[in-house]
Amino acid sequence: MDPFEDAGVYHLNADMSLVQTVDFFPPLVDDPFTFGQIAAANSLSDVYAMGAQPISALNIVGFPDKDLPSEILCDILAGGADKVREAGAALLGGHSVRDAEIKYGLAVTGTVHPDRIICNNAAQPGDVLILTKPIGSGVLTSAAKSDKILQEDLAEAIAVMTCLNRGACEAMVEVGVHSATDVTGFGLLGHAFEMASGSGVSITLRANDVPLLQDTLKFASQGIVTRAHKASLQYLADRLRVEGVDETLVNVLADAQTSGGLLIAVEAEKADALVKLLKQKNTPIAAVIGEVKSARDQAIILR
Amino acid sequence: MDPFEDAGVYHLNADMSLVQTVDFFPPLVDDPFTFGQIAAANSLSDVYAMGAQPISALNIVGFPDKDLPSEILCDILAGGADKVREAGAALLGGHSVRDAEIKYGLAVTGTVHPDRIICNNAAQPGDVLILTKPIGSGVLTSAAKSDKILQEDLAEAIAVMTCLNRGACEAMVEVGVHSATDVTGFGLLGHAFEMASGSGVSITLRANDVPLLQDTLKFASQGIVTRAHKASLQYLADRLRVEGVDETLVNVLADAQTSGGLLIAVEAEKADALVKLLKQKNTPIAAVIGEVKSARDQAIILR
Repeated sequence: MDPFEDAGVYHLNADMSLVQTVDFFPPLVDDPFTFGQIAAANSLSDVYAMGAQPISALNIVGFPDKDLPSEILCDILAGGADKVREAGAALLGGHSVRDAEIKYGLAVTGTVHPDRIICNNAAQPGDVLILTKPIGSGVLTSAAKSDKILQEDLAEAIAVMTCLNRGACEAMVEVGVHSATDVTGFGLLGHAFEMASGSGVSITLRANDVPLLQDTLKFASQGIVTRAHKASLQYLADRLRVEGVDETLVNVLADAQTSGGLLIAVEAEKADALVKLLKQKNTPIAAVIGEVKSARDQAIILR
Repeated sequence: MDPFEDAGVYHLNADMSLVQTVDFFPPLVDDPFTFGQIAAANSLSDVYAMGAQPISALNIVGFPDKDLPSEILCDILAGGADKVREAGAALLGGHSVRDAEIKYGLAVTGTVHPDRIICNNAAQPGDVLILTKPIGSGVLTSAAKSDKILQEDLAEAIAVMTCLNRGACEAMVEVGVHSATDVTGFGLLGHAFEMASGSGVSITLRANDVPLLQDTLKFASQGIVTRAHKASLQYLADRLRVEGVDETLVNVLADAQTSGGLLIAVEAEKADALVKLLKQKNTPIAAVIGEVKSARDQAIILR
């Protein structure tokens, strides 16, 4: 049992498993309501990544009530509640503590049939890899923090981060896929590595096919990335082989994402049908970005 | 929906409801393992108070990893895991953030048959009130914080705070009771008031029958109580009538408890059987402390 895993499964009976996860973090955008939406979408995402349906959520709040007006907290909670409602889940309560800085997130419970849990360690050679959201939220929110980008130019990133992975989950459940994970703190490369190593396969990613948020490369080339990209690349070390991909793009693909998309491994014959259905279900940028191969020297080949 | 409620119920199907709660707070004792045990017992308590069986838990952690060695965090998590195991629940994961001070607790899920949920708003006139743990943890941990008491003299308080309300829950479920709540942040008087006002009844408490931890009155008479007692008394205001009870004792009975006992309303005919069963189930101090009456001018009468 690793106490730092982000999601767990409890088999309630022959027909139902609970999928449970908790996540919370400090604000990464200025607007409290938007921050609440992003934090909630991010917390709900782990449940969607396993093919489960969120049913309930609890608020987790740290707030400096002596320094900030309570309206800010109300707006954050309203943003979170908005996304919980959109997910069709019930907000059952929560806990708040006085804190030096704002923190917000959810503990989420989802349900799924035990036979239909989608794990991140079940990709099979021959599968195609599909990503459901563009990469770049770490770079762009970092740029905003250092005032390199106007809040209004964050609109695309905010739209992506507030978007629930609900449609992506419904599409992959409907089509039937082998494996999935959501792209968050370890970046696309880190989460792809988890899938490869858990599944005992190698994953080839085509860097230029990965959809990026606008201006991501521009800021990344100025060195604006979250520090998480370094940790991910160090962790991957020689399990990653890079073939002719620019260092800036490698850093972007290793960089932390907030409320990122699903990375889905689906058998090649079903890939077109899945992309088509994803585009119908609120996931317009769904893109095929690589393939699963049998295990070889490197777990991840980025070309 | 009050986002600051501490527990919620989700009706899964005709045979099963989920009871969900989250709680976490900074250390109140020096030993990390003991703190982990107390925080976990406290988080599990809300589930027991509703007559439910904990099935799963997620760790919630704030930790200053730059200032403190990671062994401290490991010990806290080990203490929490110890109590989750004792509760028969599965620790499914969790989330940690870098924080200015240590915080720890659990998000807990329990199950109960929808017809057998024990609410805090269902006390009936004629019921007897039973408390399953002594009062005083707020006073004694405050005394320890200001070095008025040696850590070894906290042993009784620690034994009480680390004790799961599991036995108390099993006993009340077996005997069958009308209503229950656990005594935590609002103190005995505050939680009794919630029961009285939710149930539309009045509650009479006999101050001298309430079991206290050793030296609680001694320290309280020196003004050592948590600030929560004031908030509770202000909140109660004229809904509380005090008849000839010393102010120090009133403050103690309004003071915040950590991982406090259950306050149970049971019909008078069953009270002896419940006390007897509680004493067999790891709850030696279970005491009858008052009665439920039909609604009158004051919700709580303390005499």
